[in-house]
Amino acid sequence: MEDNEKEFERTELDELGEFGLIDRLTADFPIQNPSTLKGVGDDAAVINHEGERTLVSVDMLVEGIHFDMTYTPLKHLGYKAAVVNFSDIYAMNGTPTQIVIGLGVSNRYSVEALDALYDGIRLACERYHVDMVGGDVTSSKTGLIISITVIGTAKEEDIVYRSGAHPNDLLCVSGDLGGAYMGLLVLEREKAEFLANPNMQPKLEGLDYVLERQLKPEARKDVIKQLKEIGVKPTSMIDISDGLASEILHLCKESGVGCQLYEEKIPLDPTTDKLAKEFQIVPSIAALNGGEDYELLFTISQADYEKIKELSLDVSIIGYMTADKGVAELITPDKHVIPLKAQGWDHMRKQEE
Amino acid sequence: MEDNEKEFERTELDELGEFGLIDRLTADFPIQNPSTLKGVGDDAAVINHEGERTLVSVDMLVEGIHFDMTYTPLKHLGYKAAVVNFSDIYAMNGTPTQIVIGLGVSNRYSVEALDALYDGIRLACERYHVDMVGGDVTSSKTGLIISITVIGTAKEEDIVYRSGAHPNDLLCVSGDLGGAYMGLLVLEREKAEFLANPNMQPKLEGLDYVLERQLKPEARKDVIKQLKEIGVKPTSMIDISDGLASEILHLCKESGVGCQLYEEKIPLDPTTDKLAKEFQIVPSIAALNGGEDYELLFTISQADYEKIKELSLDVSIIGYMTADKGVAELITPDKHVIPLKAQGWDHMRKQEE
Repeated sequence: MEDNEKEFERTELDELGEFGLIDRLTADFPIQNPSTLKGVGDDAAVINHEGERTLVSVDMLVEGIHFDMTYTPLKHLGYKAAVVNFSDIYAMNGTPTQIVIGLGVSNRYSVEALDALYDGIRLACERYHVDMVGGDVTSSKTGLIISITVIGTAKEEDIVYRSGAHPNDLLCVSGDLGGAYMGLLVLEREKAEFLANPNMQPKLEGLDYVLERQLKPEARKDVIKQLKEIGVKPTSMIDISDGLASEILHLCKESGVGCQLYEEKIPLDPTTDKLAKEFQIVPSIAALNGGEDYELLFTISQADYEKIKELSLDVSIIGYMTADKGVAELITPDKHVIPLKAQGWDHMRKQEE
Repeated sequence: MEDNEKEFERTELDELGEFGLIDRLTADFPIQNPSTLKGVGDDAAVINHEGERTLVSVDMLVEGIHFDMTYTPLKHLGYKAAVVNFSDIYAMNGTPTQIVIGLGVSNRYSVEALDALYDGIRLACERYHVDMVGGDVTSSKTGLIISITVIGTAKEEDIVYRSGAHPNDLLCVSGDLGGAYMGLLVLEREKAEFLANPNMQPKLEGLDYVLERQLKPEARKDVIKQLKEIGVKPTSMIDISDGLASEILHLCKESGVGCQLYEEKIPLDPTTDKLAKEFQIVPSIAALNGGEDYELLFTISQADYEKIKELSLDVSIIGYMTADKGVAELITPDKHVIPLKAQGWDHMRKQEE
């Protein structure tokens, strides 16, 4: 460990001071969008979304609640913090264009640690073509708090709300579900084993997929693009941050409809399926309640069914909406009917102090 | 105390859960702006600033760093957290129109405490005609963290940047300075005396002005409106959050100019002046380094001098800009010349952990 520590520089935050730190962290964020008229460096950023609508969403990540520094690389954390915000804008069928960052940080963190965090944010901004246009950096008494607000744009006629689903619309989901939760369980297991036996080597071979789902998720920009290309506008949409069950209930509530969900249609990756069984969890339960998959859950008109099926989209049809307002049910392979409940990530209940 | 405690209900956060809490806190925020097409309740808010520019700014307030719960009423804190963000938009010569709130909260806080916080935010939104359009509520391990992002609007030709000051422009400031800092010193003094002797009654008579400056500041919407009415567009502008000295240096740096500031022209309230002497601080130092006044510091062309002087604006002319790039100096009444330094609120240096 001693050799290792020597390799890394450690500059204390107070060596730079607030303004010096902000200058350093925000230095290398080139502007990519013509809509960004003024980025970092004034009282506010200035944006031109002329002719389009402006979308705004915020997410706050708190150390010890949303992430555990024992197994979360800071660069990954920065990437994830940005991407989960982009996902909210895609879930409106919009395009993320700018972010502002609120950062609270204790002096347990070095300047180099924050450099790594911002490297991750920078990478996400580059990949998703988003401009970082402002922020606020302050002290915290305990650990790291990241609050990212994302600004996006969409033509008014393109925006998809949670409230537009109709009875008989097909319920669709991108990608596969439950992987991020399995990644979390693996990381928690390895942490517990490491604490019990610090000489142990982590057993992570073959688990790249679920680890990446947890530590470095992607937003489904590609699916939004493909749907536009084939001329399908979802009738309602939400991204999956709290688990499939919770998000289906949001769509039902906001749209005033019900839902029939087929358990065997829920898309699962083989690694997720295998690990769930190892952890003695029914795989579909990991998908329903696990959360943090950042896939898109949306409904389409039956008239669009052929367009979706013909192309090799990474989208599964998992059920349909009904006129039974508020009745959302899971149909098991043996035709049992189970009411859906929002388990989700209820951080309020998990909290300890 | 016992009687007092009975008067107040205490509902634990986990009785409501995350979604129940969000529903409760965001229930009573009527939309006031036609530009708010969709507020709380979807993946993102939807805003129509068609024909105008969109302004965005974020501020993060952390318990124990920016506020001390022993003397900060939660309603005041909510009001202040919103208003200091509005101030950033006025400092661009814009109009704040929407906010989104990121809230981290430990279970030391009850639902009723958060109700009080949101009452303050609501009052600020009503008074300044701003819509609360979204947010994220999460747990924190220690205390309260409030991150507010404000969205505003302005016509492109109206926007005032920090970078527009020219040599010979007059340096102006609204209201008076140093009051918020004196309010903080009074509150800290009373806290220390209370801790030493809990039976002591606080000595706060006659100090309403400075206490309000600290606990419940206002943003200078009125000054922005008056300047528009008399046809004066500042050449550069910033709001005073970190102290006059720090903000002057920002204007000089961004505009590539220097500044001569006259100490005797710095506007001080009589209470601020009296208290500063009581605390053995030179009153102008409280104004230069104190911060949190949220007054507007701006430059105007000499051609606009008559317009400013003729009307009874709450604005003082305190100096002028020079061609000596980076040379910002304070001229004392006896003609001593002292270079300005940004002392400011450097939270990074004050932090203890």
